[in-house]
Amino acid sequence: MKFVCSKENLLEGINVVQKAVSTKTTLPILEGILIEAGEKIKMTGNDLEIGIECYVDADVREEGSIVLNSRMFGDIVRRLPDSEVYLEVKENNTVAIECENSLFEIRGLSAEGFPELPSIEKSDGIRISQKALKDMIRQTIFAVSTDENRPMLTGSLFENKAGVFTIVSIDGYRLAMRRVVHENSEQTDNVERRLVIPGKTLNEIAKIIQPVDDEMYIYASGNQILFDMGKCIMTSRLLEGEYLNYMSIIPREHETKITVNTKDLQACFERASLVITSEERRYPVRLEISDDIMVITANTEAGNVREEIKVEMEGKKLDISFNHRYFIEALRVIDNEMIDIFFTTNIGPCTIRPLQGDDFAYLILPIRK
Amino acid sequence: MKFVCSKENLLEGINVVQKAVSTKTTLPILEGILIEAGEKIKMTGNDLEIGIECYVDADVREEGSIVLNSRMFGDIVRRLPDSEVYLEVKENNTVAIECENSLFEIRGLSAEGFPELPSIEKSDGIRISQKALKDMIRQTIFAVSTDENRPMLTGSLFENKAGVFTIVSIDGYRLAMRRVVHENSEQTDNVERRLVIPGKTLNEIAKIIQPVDDEMYIYASGNQILFDMGKCIMTSRLLEGEYLNYMSIIPREHETKITVNTKDLQACFERASLVITSEERRYPVRLEISDDIMVITANTEAGNVREEIKVEMEGKKLDISFNHRYFIEALRVIDNEMIDIFFTTNIGPCTIRPLQGDDFAYLILPIRK
Repeated sequence: MKFVCSKENLLEGINVVQKAVSTKTTLPILEGILIEAGEKIKMTGNDLEIGIECYVDADVREEGSIVLNSRMFGDIVRRLPDSEVYLEVKENNTVAIECENSLFEIRGLSAEGFPELPSIEKSDGIRISQKALKDMIRQTIFAVSTDENRPMLTGSLFENKAGVFTIVSIDGYRLAMRRVVHENSEQTDNVERRLVIPGKTLNEIAKIIQPVDDEMYIYASGNQILFDMGKCIMTSRLLEGEYLNYMSIIPREHETKITVNTKDLQACFERASLVITSEERRYPVRLEISDDIMVITANTEAGNVREEIKVEMEGKKLDISFNHRYFIEALRVIDNEMIDIFFTTNIGPCTIRPLQGDDFAYLILPIRK
Repeated sequence: MKFVCSKENLLEGINVVQKAVSTKTTLPILEGILIEAGEKIKMTGNDLEIGIECYVDADVREEGSIVLNSRMFGDIVRRLPDSEVYLEVKENNTVAIECENSLFEIRGLSAEGFPELPSIEKSDGIRISQKALKDMIRQTIFAVSTDENRPMLTGSLFENKAGVFTIVSIDGYRLAMRRVVHENSEQTDNVERRLVIPGKTLNEIAKIIQPVDDEMYIYASGNQILFDMGKCIMTSRLLEGEYLNYMSIIPREHETKITVNTKDLQACFERASLVITSEERRYPVRLEISDDIMVITANTEAGNVREEIKVEMEGKKLDISFNHRYFIEALRVIDNEMIDIFFTTNIGPCTIRPLQGDDFAYLILPIRK
């Protein structure tokens, strides 16, 4: 194998596929990046759970393949001058990497032992802009459960239905929901899909996706999912089973409604959290809503906090307590300046929503006193 | 005690004195910041090794003092709105902190138990600009020894003599020296001083000093040093004993001299270091100098690197080996575009110097093959 490739392109590919390279494995080949030279360079990382494939433009002078240790290869390319990089596989899988006046020789591994990515048919894909998906994952992933006793909740639901794409995470104490209506609706936007993607996969795909308007497609077959960004693809297993019917969880009625500034409320909760230095379930934050004022208090051994915030209020007065962390994590990801919060009773869930539309819903269960 | 102070001023003071607050202590009072309200607010942190005192402008309404947990107090003030902060000590050392619609009540400790800073006479001070001292410490601290068997080398020498201020660090394998000639020479610039300041103190003072041209003074008496930045002071113990006569270590003769671009050479060493994944003393980087070319190679089980770099050469050809880390750490802190390197023999030290003057010298011992 011989090729010439710009440092910039090579590094871009490495940075992406490295996210699927295992760092905790006893199999050296899984610590490697598979490099295949055909018309272009194809790089692959595969930790057997997530796989990433990336195509890089290069001047291929001899086809072939090799596996190079991901960390070492990445560090070398990162340190090279911004110039053309020449890579050649020599005898005994020795690889020469040359750039200006630098020459590296490192050992590679035969490509034969590298595990193949699952093959997933590219049909009935969910179409979405990369930026939209990146944002939606960021705005829901924090509510993914880490409790392995409820394995389906350790992932997020991707639901596509009637021209609307929705992501939902639930951890038993709260729910995060984000949805977008497909623009310039195409036939395939109505394809019905319910996929549950592991939290780890979501973390990685969110890092790979660029905040650009370019569209990408999400395909699935069997228990595998494929994210297709054009130059790069990522595959992952899916979680198998039935996801909760989230629509039945979100209350339709309310007894109290407030309208409040998002960042001001977030700051109140963040300050209240400062005296809650441990055992957050034992030390809730209390909200007392009446007369367009919400008083937020926390009392612990470390100290007391009292915050007052102006709200627009409709309905009954309310005295209710929450885990501060659930509120803070939801408020942090909301980009809207103002939000509505709908309360049922002081033992029922509250729901944070936009003033108009239903782009998001964050449901939080209170702590009973 | 009662005062009103802007959040900004209060936080600036906290951020500085926090650097002297102990995080690993069983004495709660040492985790605190002493706050004393007189004409201004004086804040003090003291971990018994380093002490910092900082004055903050405030509207003091009642004099007094209290000790507040540094982490808690800092976190609270950081999270407050950018506004006026009202602080009041109430019964039983309870402290109320109020800002706009936020009210905190936390427990303080009586100021009585707080250890006093050592008193150091402000005479015969070394005068230096804050920026110059900050730079000089950064450019020498990496060569401070961590070997407790040679306690004097775990600090840097501050030498003031005949209008020149010099900092020197030596760890047995290398030496780092930076000097400045006092500008607009004053009488006191000729005061003779030889002080050895612990590495930990240097680390902290370098963080506190701002990169501004304002002058500061360094005083010493007994085994204590005082850095006086005007609004803030820092005290520390000194290392007691005789520091090495560094002038006798730096060779006056050379057999080979090269002139080379600093950042290009640094990049060569950094690339060469990539194959040296462990045991750096076992795997030196080899320099072969001849005919205005320096060839830099490293050969380890992980791979081989060969770098070529253009140099201007004078004197004999040379084949010599070094620990890459010593070169990299010196080259990283040199701001000059070009440097001279003077070599004696392949078993004697080399010295990195500026093309003109003697603002710095970095001496490195080779590894014998």
